[in-house]
Amino acid sequence: MKRYNLCLLGYGNVGRALVALLVKKSEAMRELYGIEWRITGVATRRMGWLASPEGFEAEALLSGEAASKALSPPPSNVSEWLRAARADVLFENTSLEPHTGEPAVSHVRAALESGAHAITANKGTVVHAYRELNELAREKGRRFMFESTVADCLPVFSLFREDFPAAELLSFSGLLNSTTGIILEEIERGGTFDEGVRRAQAMGVAETNPSYDVDGWDSTVKACAIANVLMNAQLKLEEVQRVGIRNLDAREVLEARAAGRPYKLVARAERTRDGRIKAVVRPEQLPLTDPLVGLDGSSLAVHFELDVLPGLTVIAHNPDVQSTAYGLLADFINAVR
Amino acid sequence: MKRYNLCLLGYGNVGRALVALLVKKSEAMRELYGIEWRITGVATRRMGWLASPEGFEAEALLSGEAASKALSPPPSNVSEWLRAARADVLFENTSLEPHTGEPAVSHVRAALESGAHAITANKGTVVHAYRELNELAREKGRRFMFESTVADCLPVFSLFREDFPAAELLSFSGLLNSTTGIILEEIERGGTFDEGVRRAQAMGVAETNPSYDVDGWDSTVKACAIANVLMNAQLKLEEVQRVGIRNLDAREVLEARAAGRPYKLVARAERTRDGRIKAVVRPEQLPLTDPLVGLDGSSLAVHFELDVLPGLTVIAHNPDVQSTAYGLLADFINAVR
Repeated sequence: MKRYNLCLLGYGNVGRALVALLVKKSEAMRELYGIEWRITGVATRRMGWLASPEGFEAEALLSGEAASKALSPPPSNVSEWLRAARADVLFENTSLEPHTGEPAVSHVRAALESGAHAITANKGTVVHAYRELNELAREKGRRFMFESTVADCLPVFSLFREDFPAAELLSFSGLLNSTTGIILEEIERGGTFDEGVRRAQAMGVAETNPSYDVDGWDSTVKACAIANVLMNAQLKLEEVQRVGIRNLDAREVLEARAAGRPYKLVARAERTRDGRIKAVVRPEQLPLTDPLVGLDGSSLAVHFELDVLPGLTVIAHNPDVQSTAYGLLADFINAVR
Repeated sequence: MKRYNLCLLGYGNVGRALVALLVKKSEAMRELYGIEWRITGVATRRMGWLASPEGFEAEALLSGEAASKALSPPPSNVSEWLRAARADVLFENTSLEPHTGEPAVSHVRAALESGAHAITANKGTVVHAYRELNELAREKGRRFMFESTVADCLPVFSLFREDFPAAELLSFSGLLNSTTGIILEEIERGGTFDEGVRRAQAMGVAETNPSYDVDGWDSTVKACAIANVLMNAQLKLEEVQRVGIRNLDAREVLEARAAGRPYKLVARAERTRDGRIKAVVRPEQLPLTDPLVGLDGSSLAVHFELDVLPGLTVIAHNPDVQSTAYGLLADFINAVR
């Protein structure tokens, strides 16, 4: 039996769902993998920098009462906080800044430098610093894990790490963004673009300003993450040809659905003959025979072409915040078992 | 770098594809996982019991020239042959006998007893002896691996072992049999049942006597394998409600497709309220929105409901003999890395 000190940096919906899931899965983790845990650090803008090497009561964290354990004076940096909490694992769940990946990249770096495993749902770390952070993790004998960055707990990275060792990924395509899926679905049901945005917001999927989703940035960042990790590319965001769904009008969307070739915001990447990776994010009309066409708007899916299998499709139907949290939990179990 | 002695029991299409794939992936296995291999034993009805502790030339095996290394006198049992070949890994690829799983179960047992990992594409071993063989493997510090038994290299068992640790499988449904998929597809295209059978045979998918597929036995065996391994059931073949596609007539199949609810041979299992597992194999009409509906006849797919994700679908599009062989190769890498 090994016990791990867990720290959460960022404690919003996903962080809270993770704590609840850790509690729910405690017995299974102990029995199946000999893993015990306690949460020794939580840091958020609202609660401050909390650290308690003996561990917080999960109940106190879920109810928000743990704020009394805020370090005073506050730590001067993340490393100091991780030391105070004697962290074995950092869950990095701060908000994405797509163009630099900061401050998440620095948080992950600090965790690995301090000898903790770093697990994140922040895709900026993968797009902007995958090689550096992966190399650092290797040097330190720790793991940098990021399964939840692309499609919640839908296996993408673990699929190639575990299920398809030594296989070669030739190309992929996918529906990587829920917000645009929900908007297009709303329009197909006779609603408006704005109604779709509001539904995605009500589901907790879209931000207040949905332009990051609508203009294809989220899909672009995810496509780069997949290409860079699984196809050994060094694709930059600006190299991806990117068209969002903002200029699709409702009539086009309705006509396409009526004609049996509905629009989806599709991300695609393939290795070209000269060995480069070409990636595109844009609305495409897919045939009804495509397994991605009948999915609910919030569902996520990736289709892979491998050298050992003509096609492999994985679909997450209606993932929710618990699914994202589970992606983090699975990373934790796989990092330490 | 570690070198493993590999033995192949059964050397048909899958065995030959495995040897070719081992050759193709040698460099990747060495570089990525520090794994080297040589084939020290091959046993088939045609070539006899071959053993050579120094290893056969893969070329000689692929061309059939290695037959001169047959043990003389032949070994009195599998254990003796494995000893002569100094086996580290047995690939068990003999034909299925669905009602007892023999002689594959005995082969796997002999391999594990002799201290070799046992890897098989023979689902009889899983349905009839999963607990015993898994327990034996654990005692011996070896692995009993069987990813290819259900859907070639489509991850089913490894998915829950690796990607979804500590998750609970609530139910599953799937298209687990290619032959029936091809027959239904042929009928929908205006062909006959027998033309469908012949096409499946020409593709190397169906046996001379396709009744095992057509009457739903293959799907039933696979459903039991999934339930027993992933849902901790002890389901027996005769407990599965089983209806094949033999009594579906062409008119019904065509009308169902025309009405937008085509027939598929679906295997389903779920845990009922009293904790038991209920499993059914039968032709079902699926709605066009189901991601399994648009697939080619030879494609295989499983849909899972988990406690941490409302739905997860995995699809293998048009798997071929190399895909089956790759399932065995992936098991080998995962057993020893």
